[in-house]
Amino acid sequence: MNAPTGRLPTALGTEFEKYFGQRFSTAAAVCLHHGKDESCYAPVPPDAVVFAQSTEEVAMVVRLCHAHKVPVIAYGTGTSLEGHLHALRGGICVDLSGMNRVVAVRAEDLDATVQAGVTRKALNGALRDTGLFFPIDPGADASLGGMAATRASGTNAVRYGTMRENVLGMTAVLADGRIVKTGSRARKSSAGYDLTRLLIGSEGTLGIITELTVRLYPLPEAISSAVCAFPTVGAAVDTVIQTIQLGVPVARIELLDALALTAINRHSKLALREAPTLFFEFHGSPAGVEEQAKTVQDIAAANHGMDFEWTARPEDRTRLWQARHDAYYACLGLKPGARSLTTDVCVPISRLADCIAETYADLEASRLTAPLVGHVGDGNFHLLLLADPDDRDENERARDFSNRLVERAIRMEGTCTGEHGVGIGKRKYLAIEHGDAALDVMRAIKRALDPDDLLNPGKILPD
Amino acid sequence: MNAPTGRLPTALGTEFEKYFGQRFSTAAAVCLHHGKDESCYAPVPPDAVVFAQSTEEVAMVVRLCHAHKVPVIAYGTGTSLEGHLHALRGGICVDLSGMNRVVAVRAEDLDATVQAGVTRKALNGALRDTGLFFPIDPGADASLGGMAATRASGTNAVRYGTMRENVLGMTAVLADGRIVKTGSRARKSSAGYDLTRLLIGSEGTLGIITELTVRLYPLPEAISSAVCAFPTVGAAVDTVIQTIQLGVPVARIELLDALALTAINRHSKLALREAPTLFFEFHGSPAGVEEQAKTVQDIAAANHGMDFEWTARPEDRTRLWQARHDAYYACLGLKPGARSLTTDVCVPISRLADCIAETYADLEASRLTAPLVGHVGDGNFHLLLLADPDDRDENERARDFSNRLVERAIRMEGTCTGEHGVGIGKRKYLAIEHGDAALDVMRAIKRALDPDDLLNPGKILPD
Repeated sequence: MNAPTGRLPTALGTEFEKYFGQRFSTAAAVCLHHGKDESCYAPVPPDAVVFAQSTEEVAMVVRLCHAHKVPVIAYGTGTSLEGHLHALRGGICVDLSGMNRVVAVRAEDLDATVQAGVTRKALNGALRDTGLFFPIDPGADASLGGMAATRASGTNAVRYGTMRENVLGMTAVLADGRIVKTGSRARKSSAGYDLTRLLIGSEGTLGIITELTVRLYPLPEAISSAVCAFPTVGAAVDTVIQTIQLGVPVARIELLDALALTAINRHSKLALREAPTLFFEFHGSPAGVEEQAKTVQDIAAANHGMDFEWTARPEDRTRLWQARHDAYYACLGLKPGARSLTTDVCVPISRLADCIAETYADLEASRLTAPLVGHVGDGNFHLLLLADPDDRDENERARDFSNRLVERAIRMEGTCTGEHGVGIGKRKYLAIEHGDAALDVMRAIKRALDPDDLLNPGKILPD
Repeated sequence: MNAPTGRLPTALGTEFEKYFGQRFSTAAAVCLHHGKDESCYAPVPPDAVVFAQSTEEVAMVVRLCHAHKVPVIAYGTGTSLEGHLHALRGGICVDLSGMNRVVAVRAEDLDATVQAGVTRKALNGALRDTGLFFPIDPGADASLGGMAATRASGTNAVRYGTMRENVLGMTAVLADGRIVKTGSRARKSSAGYDLTRLLIGSEGTLGIITELTVRLYPLPEAISSAVCAFPTVGAAVDTVIQTIQLGVPVARIELLDALALTAINRHSKLALREAPTLFFEFHGSPAGVEEQAKTVQDIAAANHGMDFEWTARPEDRTRLWQARHDAYYACLGLKPGARSLTTDVCVPISRLADCIAETYADLEASRLTAPLVGHVGDGNFHLLLLADPDDRDENERARDFSNRLVERAIRMEGTCTGEHGVGIGKRKYLAIEHGDAALDVMRAIKRALDPDDLLNPGKILPD
C-alpha cells in the first residue's frame, strides 16, 4: 500500500480553486472525512476534495487530474464497508452528494433518471404519489451512484434483483475525462458489449458514474409480513428452499440467528423467541399475499417452525422490519465499545445450512461473538464479528476467522462478497475466487480503460 | 468486408487432421453450411470446420489458431439472424453442437450447468420430472451458448428476464486459448468486474462460451392464457402499460397486428378477429392466475378490447401459443417465395404506440408488406419485411425502411436490437446508438482481450 503523496501539483490546485471556489477544499477535516467509510480501515485522506454539481464538472476534474496524473476517487455518502474511499495514493476526492437531482420519473415506463448523489430514500421520497417504488435497500441510505458502483442489493433482492438487474443505463466519466453514455431506456438490448454491467460493481476504478436510469416497480396492492422461529438454522433454510421451489414469489426472506434475536429484543423492546428466525414479506393482491402466507405457514410447520405469526397491519409490519433494519446497531449493543468486522459471503442455497454449521463451529473455536443476519433467499449472510478495537488478539482471531469463512464459501461455489464489494479488504480473495485467467482479463480491462491507474487506484484488483 | 483467405496454413490443417480425424472437415458443403445463419446475408464459408466435444478441445483449437493468426468462429445451431456466423476473413469454425451434455441440474438451487451446445428445448427436456423449467425462448431452438452470445430473450422476458439476467457463470475460451471461468453459483456477487455480463452479448468476439450455469424456475402450479383484440395498436399498448403498472405479474404479453392475425389464421386454421391482438399468459396459483386474468380483462374492456377469451385448459393454451410461435412461418406464407428481413427495435413502452404508428405510415409509403409481432411488455417488436429475393427495388426499399425504423427507435431512446444482436447487419447503428465514447470503450476492450482480432472478426464493431 503506497502512502498518499500529500502533494497536489500547484497548478492543479490553482485551477480547481479558480473554478470551484468554496467547493474546493484542502482542509484537513474535510479531507479526513472523505478518506474513510464505515469499515474498520484507518482513514487515508485525499489531498483535496471537490464538490461537483454536474457531469460536466466531474469530467473537468477528471480531465485535469488526467493531465497531471493525479488519482481521482468518487464519493457518495461514505457508507461503503470495504475501504472503497481510502485515498491510497492521495489525489482528489470528487464528492457527488450535491448531484442530488431526480432528473425524470417516467411512470408509464417504470423508470427514473437520477444524478448519482441521489440516495435510495430520497428517490423513494420523490416517488411518493406515483404508486411506484425503487426496491434496492442496502443497510445505509446510500447514494444510487455508490450502490451501482458496488453492485449493492439488500433485503428485496430475492424478488427484485440487485443493482445489476435494475440499472438500464448510465452516464459516466472515463479516466481521460470523456463522458460516456451506456445502455438506453429500452428494457432490453443486444446492441454490443454491456458497458452498463461492466461499470456496475467496478467501484469507481473504470469510470465515475454521474447519472443513472433505474427500474421502478408498482407498489404492491397489499403487503403482509410473517415471522417464524425454528429449532435449527437448517430447518429455517429448508423452509426457504421449499418456499422458493414452490414458486411462492416472496419479496423478502431474512434469517436472523438466536444471538441476533437477543440483540434486537433488547434494542427494539421486542419479546421474540431467541432462536433462528425467518422474517418474510409478501407482495401482491390481498388474496395473493394471504395465499402466500398460508403456503409458507404450512411449509414452516412441516419444518418444525414455532410461533408463526403473520400480519398485514402496516404498523406491525413496520415495527418488525424496523427491528430487522436496526439489527446492525442492535448487534453492536451486544458488546459495548466493540467494532464490527462484517462478513458478506454468499453461497448456493443448498450449501447454506452446511456453511453456517461449519462457521458456527469455527466461531466457537475462535472464541468470538458474532450474531448472524442473512438475505437467506439469495444465500447471502453477514456475521458481525464484534471485537474490542484495543484487543489485538481478538482482532487477529476475527480476521483469521473471516479468511476461513471466505475460503469455505468459495469452496462451496460461492463468493467472498454478495453485496458489499471488494474495496481494499477483499482483493486478496479474487484470485482464489476467479482464478488467474479471469483476474488477467480484469487487469487487461483496467489497463485498457485506465492505463495510468488514476481511477480509485489500489481497489478491487490485487497488486 | 474482406474476402475469406481460402488458405489454411498447412501445418494447422495437419495438426487438426491428426487430432480430430473425422471431426475436422474442409469439405465445401460442410464449410458452406457453417458460413451462414437464418439472415438474408449470402453465405461466407470458413476454411474448415472442427467439431469440438469439450472445453479443452475448443481451447486447443483456439490456441493453435492464435499461434497461426487464423480467425475462429463458434457455431451452435446456425439460427442467428444478423450474419453472426459468416467467416468474413476465413478461418476455422468450431461447431459446438456436439457439446450437448447437461452437466448438472441442482433442483435445490434452481440452477443447471450445461455445455454450450445444449439447446433450450433439450434443457427443458432434461428438466422433465424436476418441476423446473428454463424460460428463455427465442423463436428457434437455439443452443444456450449461442443464446448467451447474442443476449437472446423471447416471449417470457417480461417476467423472467433475458439471458443477461439468467446466467450465473460460465466457462469460456479466450483469444489466446486460455480457459476462463466467470461468476460462481452464488445468486449474487460484488466480487470484481462482471465478466459474465461482458461475455453475454459479445457474439463470440471476446471469448468462446463453452459451458454455462443458468437459473431455473419452478413450473407454475397453474398457467392460463388469454387473447383479446383491440380496435387500434394504441389501445392494445395502453392495456399493456396499465397491466404492468398495476403490478400484474404477467408471464407473457405478445402483440400481433391485423396482418399477422391474417397470417396465423390461414396457417394455423384459426378464426381469430383480424385486428391488433394481445396474447397473454399468466403463471401462479390457480386462484392467482384467475385473479390476474380478471384484472387484465377489466383493463382490456376499459380500452375497448373485444372478444376477450381466457382459458386454463392445456390443449387450448398450447394451440394458441403454438400459433404464436409459428407466426414467422405463417407470415412468410403471406407472400410465397419472399424472404423476410426481420427488424428488432426496442423502445420505452410509453413510446411504443407512437413508434408503431410512424412505422406504419412509413410502411405504407414504402409499399412494403410486413406483419408485426412484438414482445410488447418489453417494448420490443419485429416487422417481417417480406421481399422477393429477385426484386432489387423491393429489397432496397426494405433496407431503407429498416434504417429509418432503427433511427426512429434510437431517437425514442430505444435500441436497434432488442434480442437478435448486432452481427454484420447492425454494426453501422452502434455509433448513433451509443456515441463515439462508448464505441471507443468497446473497441478498447476488444483490443485488450483479442489484440489480433481473431475471434469472430468483422462482427459487432463497425470498421
